[in-house]
Amino acid sequence: MKSTVARRMEGFTPFYVMELLQRAKQLEAQGRDIIHMEIGEPGFPTPAAIVEQGIKYIQKGEVKYTAAAGLLELRLKISKFYLEKYKVKVAAERIFVTPGASGAFLLALGVSLNPGEEVLMADPCYPCNQNFVRLMEAKTKFINVDGKTDYQLSAQLIKDNWSHNSKGVLIASPSNPTGTLIAPTALEQIIKQINSLGGCFYSDEIYHGLVYGKEARSALEFSDDVFVINSFSKYFGMTGWRIGWLVVPELYTNAVERLAQNIFISTSTHSQYAALAAFTEQNLLELEHRKDEFEKRRDFLYSHLIRLGFEIMVKPEGAFYIYANCSRYSEDSFQFAKDLLEQQGVAVTPGKDFGNNAENCYIRFAYTAPIAKMSVAIERLEKFICQ
Amino acid sequence: MKSTVARRMEGFTPFYVMELLQRAKQLEAQGRDIIHMEIGEPGFPTPAAIVEQGIKYIQKGEVKYTAAAGLLELRLKISKFYLEKYKVKVAAERIFVTPGASGAFLLALGVSLNPGEEVLMADPCYPCNQNFVRLMEAKTKFINVDGKTDYQLSAQLIKDNWSHNSKGVLIASPSNPTGTLIAPTALEQIIKQINSLGGCFYSDEIYHGLVYGKEARSALEFSDDVFVINSFSKYFGMTGWRIGWLVVPELYTNAVERLAQNIFISTSTHSQYAALAAFTEQNLLELEHRKDEFEKRRDFLYSHLIRLGFEIMVKPEGAFYIYANCSRYSEDSFQFAKDLLEQQGVAVTPGKDFGNNAENCYIRFAYTAPIAKMSVAIERLEKFICQ
Repeated sequence: MKSTVARRMEGFTPFYVMELLQRAKQLEAQGRDIIHMEIGEPGFPTPAAIVEQGIKYIQKGEVKYTAAAGLLELRLKISKFYLEKYKVKVAAERIFVTPGASGAFLLALGVSLNPGEEVLMADPCYPCNQNFVRLMEAKTKFINVDGKTDYQLSAQLIKDNWSHNSKGVLIASPSNPTGTLIAPTALEQIIKQINSLGGCFYSDEIYHGLVYGKEARSALEFSDDVFVINSFSKYFGMTGWRIGWLVVPELYTNAVERLAQNIFISTSTHSQYAALAAFTEQNLLELEHRKDEFEKRRDFLYSHLIRLGFEIMVKPEGAFYIYANCSRYSEDSFQFAKDLLEQQGVAVTPGKDFGNNAENCYIRFAYTAPIAKMSVAIERLEKFICQ
Repeated sequence: MKSTVARRMEGFTPFYVMELLQRAKQLEAQGRDIIHMEIGEPGFPTPAAIVEQGIKYIQKGEVKYTAAAGLLELRLKISKFYLEKYKVKVAAERIFVTPGASGAFLLALGVSLNPGEEVLMADPCYPCNQNFVRLMEAKTKFINVDGKTDYQLSAQLIKDNWSHNSKGVLIASPSNPTGTLIAPTALEQIIKQINSLGGCFYSDEIYHGLVYGKEARSALEFSDDVFVINSFSKYFGMTGWRIGWLVVPELYTNAVERLAQNIFISTSTHSQYAALAAFTEQNLLELEHRKDEFEKRRDFLYSHLIRLGFEIMVKPEGAFYIYANCSRYSEDSFQFAKDLLEQQGVAVTPGKDFGNNAENCYIRFAYTAPIAKMSVAIERLEKFICQ
């Protein structure tokens, strides 16, 4: 019987949080009040201007396939956004609209990775990244990071871990699960290091915009020879619309276009039209207000977790996550998360979902819920650890 | 310099029709009237009920991620659709909602194909199929087909071409580009043959519903041990919404779920909600009217192409394509298509886009335009070949 599951799937780790999520739903169905701090989804609706624009175009009947690379109008707006926000010129021809950042990863890795080649990543990191690499029959080399480098790779770490199989380096800043940023000089050095090694640099910038007290720098400020993955999901509040984008080095534009034509045809048309409204001054103003609110939530959650004795090695500066060491209370953070849910109705994500670097000591809190709700969560958490 | 395009992309054939499409747009920008018979997109808007449902849920703020497998409510409706239309029971757990049929192909091939394994396909066939296979580092073995088997594979052809590397067989019925159906007995024999060989069967049923004078049979009527790829794009008129589905054998459900979680997160939420309205009695009635109109267009175009001396080996019974032999007029169908566009403003797709089986003799006409418009196209075509 040849009809068996492909070998690549053996390595596709499940999301452990899904187990918790299912249990949370069961408990909710039983009438329990569950506070969700496990999901990476902004707790705001899609901005009204984006929604209205989407509906307008659906009503106009603009629901046909678009070009594989996306609506030119949207690519031009993204190009303009890079000029205004980062002061860099990025030709629209290098920008591809994709079905979420997921689609951007598929394209970036699909056009650049050969089987057996290696991508360097920080551990902990977002669990899907290694599986995109695996889909291309390539490999991930995880490098343990900690507070010393803000949970990010450094030029030195890359140099030390680079081998003849290495093809590229993936960095997410702000990072999921740690919320930490890479320092601009560190980023510049890394890009120089990779360029001199002749490798690919994949810059995951999907949490750009959600950065507190400073601005995140784009890899595009330092080089044109980088892949930048971004998304309308997080800062722009469009998760379910499934729309993101990819900026590619000139050399890859033709291959990316061919791959996108073949594996997507195009990105959801109404999501693309809706996203045209994302960059208006008024909408960006609304998004900045939301960002300020996220900052308050970050400060609230951070101070209480510290007070309760969780160790947080680097104060997170972006995204909406805090990666907290709970080893003072448990040596098995997955069990900690299960018990916390069962006993107090607070759902969090176990470190296990983010790698193999002291993962049993950590849990990730998402501060996507309003402070009033998080206050209840903190009370419950306090009861849980003081019992 | 290691930073080079991945080897797999060398084999990703471009869509030759894109060249024609670009030229068509140039000509239109110059004020020329172009009749588009090259695009595989139904010439009807998305049905009003689906549009309204989509808008309703966007307005309700239902724009968050869904489960990776899709909304349970939609999976249940698809399950019911199989029971009502094909009289087969398909558990909702085996149905995955995907970003178009494209997403379904990614999942089906991703969970089942190992590098180096071979998938058997008919030549001519839809150009993306072999590239999905290539993305998994697997190979396509093309088998030339012609009118003798309705442009479809047969159990005998599969037996003759099966080797130790073979992993599966992909069949599209109705076929793109030929519009031909596989006979139910032939389908049954093929599935038996593949089951006895221990291979995977991938049944592309995305043009089901658009079948004239008879009903297409689903592979699921003959076996549970098949992958069925379907879509809301064609019959249901939802191309730009990017939504389709995949039915998988029980053995693969867990792997498909993990792959979908990782590479998609989920399918566009509003597209899923919109599709909930696809299966109402009233909507299906409207779609049947559209189908009748497509049948008239097929009859119109078929009779005129025959009258003009194009050879059509098998009268197409489904989809909205006619694959016509133009070798009476040209030995280079791509040039024929270019000249036809340039001189008469009629755009068609060259055989080159569908394989290497006498491809220079063929062009594909899509009959997605109204008859009045196609009448003009026929007049122009007649002028072109009689000049």
